[in-house]
Amino acid sequence: MAKKIEQQRQECIIPLDIGEKYRVELPHIIDDIVESCTNALCFNHVDAAVIPSKESVIEIIEIIKDILYPGYLGQQEIDRHNLPYHIGGEVTTLFEKLSYQVSRSIIHECRRYNRLCTQCIDRGQKEAVNFLKKIPKLREILALDVRAAFDGDPAAKSYDEIIFSYPGLLAITIYRVAHELYVQDVPLIPRIMTEHAHSVTGIDIHPGAQIGERFFIDHGTGVVIGETSIIGNSVKIYQGVTLGALSFAKDEEGRLIRGTKRHPTIENDVIIYANATILGGDTVIGARSVIGGNVWITQSVPPDTMVILETPGLIYKSRKGF
Amino acid sequence: MAKKIEQQRQECIIPLDIGEKYRVELPHIIDDIVESCTNALCFNHVDAAVIPSKESVIEIIEIIKDILYPGYLGQQEIDRHNLPYHIGGEVTTLFEKLSYQVSRSIIHECRRYNRLCTQCIDRGQKEAVNFLKKIPKLREILALDVRAAFDGDPAAKSYDEIIFSYPGLLAITIYRVAHELYVQDVPLIPRIMTEHAHSVTGIDIHPGAQIGERFFIDHGTGVVIGETSIIGNSVKIYQGVTLGALSFAKDEEGRLIRGTKRHPTIENDVIIYANATILGGDTVIGARSVIGGNVWITQSVPPDTMVILETPGLIYKSRKGF
Amino acid sequence: MAKKIEQQRQECIIPLDIGEKYRVELPHIIDDIVESCTNALCFNHVDAAVIPSKESVIEIIEIIKDILYPGYLGQQEIDRHNLPYHIGGEVTTLFEKLSYQVSRSIIHECRRYNRLCTQCIDRGQKEAVNFLKKIPKLREILALDVRAAFDGDPAAKSYDEIIFSYPGLLAITIYRVAHELYVQDVPLIPRIMTEHAHSVTGIDIHPGAQIGERFFIDHGTGVVIGETSIIGNSVKIYQGVTLGALSFAKDEEGRLIRGTKRHPTIENDVIIYANATILGGDTVIGARSVIGGNVWITQSVPPDTMVILETPGLIYKSRKGF
Repeated sequence: MAKKIEQQRQECIIPLDIGEKYRVELPHIIDDIVESCTNALCFNHVDAAVIPSKESVIEIIEIIKDILYPGYLGQQEIDRHNLPYHIGGEVTTLFEKLSYQVSRSIIHECRRYNRLCTQCIDRGQKEAVNFLKKIPKLREILALDVRAAFDGDPAAKSYDEIIFSYPGLLAITIYRVAHELYVQDVPLIPRIMTEHAHSVTGIDIHPGAQIGERFFIDHGTGVVIGETSIIGNSVKIYQGVTLGALSFAKDEEGRLIRGTKRHPTIENDVIIYANATILGGDTVIGARSVIGGNVWITQSVPPDTMVILETPGLIYKSRKGF
Repeated sequence: MAKKIEQQRQECIIPLDIGEKYRVELPHIIDDIVESCTNALCFNHVDAAVIPSKESVIEIIEIIKDILYPGYLGQQEIDRHNLPYHIGGEVTTLFEKLSYQVSRSIIHECRRYNRLCTQCIDRGQKEAVNFLKKIPKLREILALDVRAAFDGDPAAKSYDEIIFSYPGLLAITIYRVAHELYVQDVPLIPRIMTEHAHSVTGIDIHPGAQIGERFFIDHGTGVVIGETSIIGNSVKIYQGVTLGALSFAKDEEGRLIRGTKRHPTIENDVIIYANATILGGDTVIGARSVIGGNVWITQSVPPDTMVILETPGLIYKSRKGF
Repeated sequence: MAKKIEQQRQECIIPLDIGEKYRVELPHIIDDIVESCTNALCFNHVDAAVIPSKESVIEIIEIIKDILYPGYLGQQEIDRHNLPYHIGGEVTTLFEKLSYQVSRSIIHECRRYNRLCTQCIDRGQKEAVNFLKKIPKLREILALDVRAAFDGDPAAKSYDEIIFSYPGLLAITIYRVAHELYVQDVPLIPRIMTEHAHSVTGIDIHPGAQIGERFFIDHGTGVVIGETSIIGNSVKIYQGVTLGALSFAKDEEGRLIRGTKRHPTIENDVIIYANATILGGDTVIGARSVIGGNVWITQSVPPDTMVILETPGLIYKSRKGF
């Protein structure tokens, strides 16, 4: 057996320089692919010049997290002596990377509409500085979110555990950052940020959503919060909850009408349990109401209401035959 | 306080060379672990020689994405002058990496059945070239998927935003690539590809599924599309939708029978809303039907039908005592 | 057109050294952010000294996976001759990284309660060694999980495919590792491990949950298994299943009471289908019972019972007007 395997191993070594037999076909294949880039149907980004880099946007998120929660995430230990230098260095790097990427996204937008972008670079820097100025306020709001998580989850052992490991807090942190850039009309980057959070946490919050203080998402996988959702203070949401659109208005040419309020409004102190789905721009969940798990709602619910599914029918039967 | 902390800091420096006290136990521990590799119960991959590398498969996906959407994803800017050289370089690298990994997966398969693999390396190169030839067609089909996303989502600001950041498009792109390799009977790699997409997007599409043109998955977290699902053209699916198996046929020894059609058929122009579950290989959702959120279906639905849950019972009660 | 684009390109080159106009504002911004670190409301980790590194914990997971499934995951090929050296090297590295991070997490915990940690470093090494001794047993238990996946999923082509690519097995592997460290009272690290698995797989298993042998999670996105869940042998769970808490007991000051049993008990041989939600610490799902998709349960179910939703109302209507 060992001998056979040895023999197989010999015969199966893969030569690193791969034979000519198939390689000769490559030039034709390459020509066809390049040709397909002139196919009006296909999407290229040729001659459209600068675009923001997803990798850089993710780097920017990491720097912002380190500035928002100093000493938690980096390898380096922070004390009161090196703190100012640490923050100073991080903020300077952030300014350079962020203003560069924001400029690129603004230029990219100009191009799409064939505008000349005489202000693009300046605006990129301006928006970056405007964002930096919001960081102290962001830290205060996020601190309330951390406390809401601790007060809302009996499994939480400490604030540190929440900052270290809770996906809900990570998604809310990135959303609050992206929302500020969205409010500043920065193109593309806010959505790239929240989709990165979506990829890492399974929580999909559109940067356009408006969310109050002390927001807590527990577990979070599958949560969807649509672009025009409005959420009050002290709202608590569990995994799989959707705040979505009911149906889409179209114009006379049958194209979707964009920008109308399509997603629900959730008032203060509402709790929405796992996998509930709430749809529609006119749907309002009144203050202090509780929406049970798996409930599917397309109409408003008054304040102080609990909505739950009736218990499902119980069918007793032996698993034999199942 | 500061002084106390200083003192604690002193006493808590961790020596990088760790003392002997526990290290002496390592040899025994290592022996036991090595011993456990001869335990017939446990899984090793010893003497099984070459296996495909998950890391390399992920690199391959990145290169393919850059070829499918030129200029969007890389750092480098592409214009009509450098495009042919850029594509040429990428395709050549792809050929080498892909043919090498496909060969490894074919050799791995041969070994499992103790076959001699005289053709493995040659077949790896052949399948790689056959895949490369499909790229122009893949680009056309994916362009239709991008348009379907734009036409289906009022939150989409531009085609570029979809290509940059939509997880649904990413999952469909990787699925369409993996499906071609699955059709070519390449072992292991198609599933590694779609499970990578699953990890990044939360969307789990088996490479064996058959999916028509203009497919759109919105949000997508929790979507499951089983191996034998058949999906027509212009189908739109939301997060948490499952196209799954109802129950599993077993042979007389009680082993699962593999390869039968276990997952539903979805005809053209069907919309399936969030968290709906559709099960069974004989279940057919007729053309133009709409399946509402949270619906659980195990039987066929005729064309032009809308299936929704009845509104759940509303229980009014004060949250006091809840 | 080409000329216009060239001209735009010229004018849109972004200078890498960014002008002074906005940079002059940075010192003030930095001062404000540093200032905000003295804001009692905000969270910093300043002067709290050593904390575990999330990056290192993820490295540790990778090493453990390579030791648990030798030859599967690394680039290097393993045969019976190099196996002992490979395992030996991996285990030694694991001991050093794990004992270092465990020490850091214990020191971090000491600080939180302002205890002096005279034993922290020693305990870190002791717990690391205690964990290493469990690896052979862990390999046996995980081998049963791999077999349960193969026996439970008709789409599985081989054991190798499961080890290579099944997210359910990955989540269970990391859970079983984290659970051992949780049982050893290692702070923070177990939760960082399972939240890493959550991020990669969408499966959220709290390290405190107790789970029997031959556990299989299929697809898995959105699965939540709470801290005090108890799961028997040969249980099979599908995507989106929640084993959660019903409501939270509070003490007289209205603070959550932590550490009580809040999550359900699942007896042997139970199957729970997609998106079912089972809540409450007193809820027991009896042996061999089957819980259907989307079911929402807050009370116990006797053994050998099948619980399914009634078929939803079918509303026939033409999609015109929808």
